[in-house]
Amino acid sequence: MADINSKLEIGVTTGPIRGSRKVHVGPLRVAMREITLEPGSGEAPVRVYDPSGPYTDADARIDISAGLPELRSDWIRARGDVEEVLQREVRPEDNGQLGPDRSGGVPAFPNVRRTVLRAKPGMNVSQMHYARRGIVTPEMEYVATRENLGREMLKDHVRDGQDWGAAIPDYVTPEWVRDEVARGRAIIPSNINHPESEPMAIGRNFLVKINANIGNSAVASDVASEVDKMVWSIRWGADTVMDLSTGRNIHDTREWILRNSPVPIGTVPIYQALEKVGGIAEELTWEIFRDTLIEQAEQGVDYFTIHAGVRLPYVPLTAKRVTGIVSRGGSIMAKWCLAHHKESFLYERFDEITEIMKAYDIAYSLGDGLRPGSIADANDEAQFAELYTLGELTKRAWEQDVQVMIEGPGHVPMHKIKENMDKQLAACGEAPFYTLGPLVTDIAPGYDHITSGIGAAMIGWYGTAMLCYVTPKEHLGLPDRDDVKVGVVTYKLAAHAADLAKGHPAAKVRDDALSRARFEFRWRDQFNLSLDPDTAEQYHDQTLPAEGAKTAHFCSMCGPKFCSMKITQEVRDFAAKQNAGMETFVAAAAEEAEKGMAEMSRVYNEGGRELYIGAGGREHD
Amino acid sequence: MADINSKLEIGVTTGPIRGSRKVHVGPLRVAMREITLEPGSGEAPVRVYDPSGPYTDADARIDISAGLPELRSDWIRARGDVEEVLQREVRPEDNGQLGPDRSGGVPAFPNVRRTVLRAKPGMNVSQMHYARRGIVTPEMEYVATRENLGREMLKDHVRDGQDWGAAIPDYVTPEWVRDEVARGRAIIPSNINHPESEPMAIGRNFLVKINANIGNSAVASDVASEVDKMVWSIRWGADTVMDLSTGRNIHDTREWILRNSPVPIGTVPIYQALEKVGGIAEELTWEIFRDTLIEQAEQGVDYFTIHAGVRLPYVPLTAKRVTGIVSRGGSIMAKWCLAHHKESFLYERFDEITEIMKAYDIAYSLGDGLRPGSIADANDEAQFAELYTLGELTKRAWEQDVQVMIEGPGHVPMHKIKENMDKQLAACGEAPFYTLGPLVTDIAPGYDHITSGIGAAMIGWYGTAMLCYVTPKEHLGLPDRDDVKVGVVTYKLAAHAADLAKGHPAAKVRDDALSRARFEFRWRDQFNLSLDPDTAEQYHDQTLPAEGAKTAHFCSMCGPKFCSMKITQEVRDFAAKQNAGMETFVAAAAEEAEKGMAEMSRVYNEGGRELYIGAGGREHD
Repeated sequence: MADINSKLEIGVTTGPIRGSRKVHVGPLRVAMREITLEPGSGEAPVRVYDPSGPYTDADARIDISAGLPELRSDWIRARGDVEEVLQREVRPEDNGQLGPDRSGGVPAFPNVRRTVLRAKPGMNVSQMHYARRGIVTPEMEYVATRENLGREMLKDHVRDGQDWGAAIPDYVTPEWVRDEVARGRAIIPSNINHPESEPMAIGRNFLVKINANIGNSAVASDVASEVDKMVWSIRWGADTVMDLSTGRNIHDTREWILRNSPVPIGTVPIYQALEKVGGIAEELTWEIFRDTLIEQAEQGVDYFTIHAGVRLPYVPLTAKRVTGIVSRGGSIMAKWCLAHHKESFLYERFDEITEIMKAYDIAYSLGDGLRPGSIADANDEAQFAELYTLGELTKRAWEQDVQVMIEGPGHVPMHKIKENMDKQLAACGEAPFYTLGPLVTDIAPGYDHITSGIGAAMIGWYGTAMLCYVTPKEHLGLPDRDDVKVGVVTYKLAAHAADLAKGHPAAKVRDDALSRARFEFRWRDQFNLSLDPDTAEQYHDQTLPAEGAKTAHFCSMCGPKFCSMKITQEVRDFAAKQNAGMETFVAAAAEEAEKGMAEMSRVYNEGGRELYIGAGGREHD
Repeated sequence: MADINSKLEIGVTTGPIRGSRKVHVGPLRVAMREITLEPGSGEAPVRVYDPSGPYTDADARIDISAGLPELRSDWIRARGDVEEVLQREVRPEDNGQLGPDRSGGVPAFPNVRRTVLRAKPGMNVSQMHYARRGIVTPEMEYVATRENLGREMLKDHVRDGQDWGAAIPDYVTPEWVRDEVARGRAIIPSNINHPESEPMAIGRNFLVKINANIGNSAVASDVASEVDKMVWSIRWGADTVMDLSTGRNIHDTREWILRNSPVPIGTVPIYQALEKVGGIAEELTWEIFRDTLIEQAEQGVDYFTIHAGVRLPYVPLTAKRVTGIVSRGGSIMAKWCLAHHKESFLYERFDEITEIMKAYDIAYSLGDGLRPGSIADANDEAQFAELYTLGELTKRAWEQDVQVMIEGPGHVPMHKIKENMDKQLAACGEAPFYTLGPLVTDIAPGYDHITSGIGAAMIGWYGTAMLCYVTPKEHLGLPDRDDVKVGVVTYKLAAHAADLAKGHPAAKVRDDALSRARFEFRWRDQFNLSLDPDTAEQYHDQTLPAEGAKTAHFCSMCGPKFCSMKITQEVRDFAAKQNAGMETFVAAAAEEAEKGMAEMSRVYNEGGRELYIGAGGREHD
C-alpha cells in the first residue's frame, strides 16, 4: 500500500481548517465544523456546514488506499431491499486501454469490492421512493440535523429576505425533509454503492449548495492530482464533486475518488461511453451506453448527467447561434442524431435508464446540452425547447420515484437570468435547478469565476438549489489546486449571499459574528470566521506582519490615529457618558429621520416614482 | 530630473495593451483603444473605451517629472471666465511636517505652477453652469464622441435589456450630453486646474464607470508607488482615481498624481484637514477645512467627497449598529459633532463650500458617512436619514449650478440593493449614484472584490453610474499592484455586465466579437478582446504552452478528440450539406418548440405561477 501511495504521490491535505474543529452532532453523529472565538469576547462558537469529511477531523485516521469508513452501509442493508451481486468485470476499454496490459495506466484501487449492491428484483431503493411511502430514512434525519445549523439559537429571529416564493422552514425536521424529497423539490443523491457519503440535500428550500468539477482529460492530469483535488475542493466547501474525466484511466480514477469521497459524486456517463467507441460519436450505441451506466452505478456514482433533452428536431435550432452547442454531451448527442437521422437514444430509452437509476438510487441530473455558450445565445429557442423536454422527462422519472435535478446555463446577461429560473420552476415542477454560473459577460476570460459568480449569486437567490463552480481557468486551461480553491470559495460566497438574500434563518449568524469581530478588532476571529482563514491572515500579514498587529486596535488601511471603527467606539463611549443628553438627541434624531423618510416617501409616491419605472419595466420589491 | 526619477523609482508601465493600439477620433482627437483581429477572420477591429491616457500610446513620450500635456488648457481659457492667481504657498503642515525641513519627505513635483486658475469674481466655471445656459463645451463634445463607441455600426440594433427606467440614447450627441449635465443626471468632473484630464461623464444614461482608490497611509506606501498605481489602474480601466492618502506628504504626492493623470482625481479633503490638526477631530475648524479645499482646488482635484450629510441628530442612530460608523470621514464628523454638541460645520457651511466648488468646477461627491459597514446594518434609519439630507444638499448645490454625485453603500444583502437605488433616485433627483460595491456578504475577507463585485454589477444594472472598486485586500491590508489590477478588472467586468443588462447599444459588440473568436478557435483574438489579455494568455499557456496550441482547433479542457465546439462546426457542416432535409427538421423543430413554449406558458399562467410568488414578493420582470 505504501508503494502505491508513493507511486501515486497522493498527498491529500488533512487536518482541521484553521481556528476550527470537527464536531459530531446527535445520535447520527452529523459532522459539522465549529469555529471557537476569543475567550474574552463573550461570543458563542459558530457552527458551520461542513462537507469536508474526515479529512479535517484531527482524530480521523486517513488511508487513501483503504478508503473512507462506510457510514451508510448498515442503513442501506437494514432496509432489506438490496442484494449482493458480483461486480461487472473491469475491461481494458473501461480505462481507455486496447489490451489487458495496464502498465501504462494508474494502479487499480487496492480495495475494490468483488460484490456490489443492487435492488432486489422489483424493488426501488431511491430516497424518493421511501419518501413517497412515508418512510423517514436515516439519510433524511442526517440531512435535517445538518441543515439546522444554528437555527435553535434563533427563536426570536425575524425573517429578513425575499425568497421569491420558496418555502424555507424555520426549523428543519426529518419529516419535512421527507416531504420535500417526496414532492421532488429536493434530492438526496445517495447511490447504495457509495456508502462512504455523508447525506446531503439539494433543493430550493435548503441551503444553496455548490459543486466542483474535477477530471483528467486527454491532455493533462492524473489520478493522484484528481483525488487530491477532490479532497481539496471539499475542504473549502464543495458539496458535491463531478468527475468529468475523459481519456484514459477513467474507471480506475473514479474508483479512487469514490472510495475516498464523503460527498456525492456525479459523472457524465456519455464521456466514458464515447471513449469506448474511440471518440466517434456516430458509433455510440444504447448497449455500450447502458453497460457504462451499470459500470458506474456499481462503482457508486451518485448522480448522472444525462443529456436526454437534446432531441433531433432541436439540433437545427442551434445552427444560427454565435457559439452553437457548447456542451460536450450535447454536441455528442447532436452529432449522433444527425448522423443517424434518428431521435436520441437517450430520449427514446429514457424509461429504461430510469429502471437502472432506481436499482441503485442514482439521481438524474438532466443535462442542458443546448445551453447557451455566449451572451448572444442566451434564452433562445433551442435552450427553452430543451428545457421543456427536461420538464417532460422529470415527470417520467418521477413516475418511477427516481430523483431528478435539472441543469441550467451557462452564459446569460443579468436581465435574462430570472426568466431561466421562472421557466425552470414552471416546466420542471420545482425539481432542483443546478446551474453553471451563469456568466454575465463573455469578455473576461481569466476572471470567469467572477463573471459567473455574479450570475450564480443572483440565480441562487432566485431559487437555484446548486451552483456548479467555474474556476479562473474556464475557457483557457485546466484548473490547478489554487484555481480549484478560488473557484470553490467564490461559489461558496455566492451561495451564502443567496441564502442571506432569501432570508435563510441561519445564514446571517456567521456574517454578524464576523462583523462583530471586525468591529472589535478581534483579528483572529475575523480570519477564522471567514471562508478562507489562510488567505485572510496572509493578506493581513503582508501589510502588518507583526504578531502584535493581530491584537492591535487598528488596521493597516487607516493606521493607528485614523481608524473609523476606533472613532465609532469613542462615539459610543461618549454617548454612554452623556446619557441624558443623548436621549434628547435620539428623540430629535428619530423625529428628524421620520420627517425625512415621510418626505422621501411622498416624493417617491407622487413624482419620483415615474423616474425609474421604465416603459417595459416594473418596480422591483 | 533623472535624479528625481531614480530617487523616486517611479517606473510606470507604458506601451500598448497587448493586441491593441491607441487611436484618436474626430477633430478633438478623442482617445480610444482599437483591437485588431486576425486578418483572415473577416472581423472588423473592435474599439473600446479607454481611460488609460497617453501611457498606452506607442507614440507618446512620457516624462513623469514634466507631467502630461494640457489637453484642455485652451478650452478653459477660451471661455474668458477665468483669471490667473498666485498659488497658495505650500506650508509644512500640508505635507504633515512640523517645520520647513522637507528632508524626510518626498521631492516636490519639479514643474509646480506658480499661478493657477480661478473663476473671475462672480463667474461660475462649472460644466453644469454652461450646460444650463445652453453652451455645448468641448468637454461635452469629447464625451459624446467617447461614449459612442461602435454605435455607428449598430443601425439595425434591436435594444435588448431591462434599463429600470434609464434613458439611454441610441446615439450620443454633444447636445444630449449638455442636456444630461444641465438636468444634473450626469457630471463631467473637470477642475480648471487639471487641464491634463480627458473629459468623461458619470451618469445613469452613460456607460457605467469605475473608480480605483489609491493613497498612502501612516502605515505604508510612498509617492512612487502611488503614481505607479494610478497609471496601472487606468491601464486596466479605472475611469477616475481617488487619492485617499493620509499621513505625511499628502500635498506633494497629490501634485505628482494630478500632473500625470488623464482621469479625474477625487479626494476626501477632511483627511488632510485632520492631519493639519494632529489627528484630533475635535480640533477641526471651518477655517482649516476651507483652506484645505482651496489648497486642493488649486492643485486641480476634480471631485471632493464631502460628508455633509452626517448631521448631529443622526449620530445616535448609529449607536445600536453592529459596526457603528465605518466611513472615515463620517466618523470624524460624528466625533466633531458630539464633542462640540453642534451641527456639522460641513452642513452649516455647505453653501460656502459650493461657492468654492463653482470657482474651479469641482464636483461634489456627497459622502455617505453613515453607510452600513455590515450586512446587519444595511438599509437602516441612519443610512436613509443621511441619504435624505444628501438629497436636500443636492438641490442646494444645483441652485448654484454645481455638479453633484452621491456616494452609496457599502455592505448590503442582495435583496436590499434595489431599495438603495430607488431611494437614491427619488431623494436625489437622479443625480449620479456612486457606490462602493456593495458587498453582498461579510464572510469572505480576502475575496471582497468578488462579494462586492456581485453587488456592484447588480446596482450598476439598477442605475448606479460609477462603481468604486474593492480589492482583495479590503478589510485586511493595503493593496499592492496585483491587487489593484484584480480590483480594477473585477469592477470593469461588473460595469460591463451592467451595461449589457441595461441594453446599452454598444456593450454587446465586444462580447459577440469575443464569442465568435472563441467559437472559431482564434485564441489570440480571444485573449486580445478580453479585459486582461496578459492573464488570459498566461492561463492558456499554463496548460498548453506550445505556440501551435494558439492556432489549434481545440483547447485543453476537452482535448483534441472531444471538443464540443469542433463537433458543433461539424454539425453545421452536416446541416449545410443536407440542406433540404434540414429544412424539414427546422420546420418540425419550430413547431415542436412552439408547442412546448405554449404549454410552458399555460402551466406558468394557470398553476405554476403561484409556486414562486411569495407572500411578500412580486414577480420580477
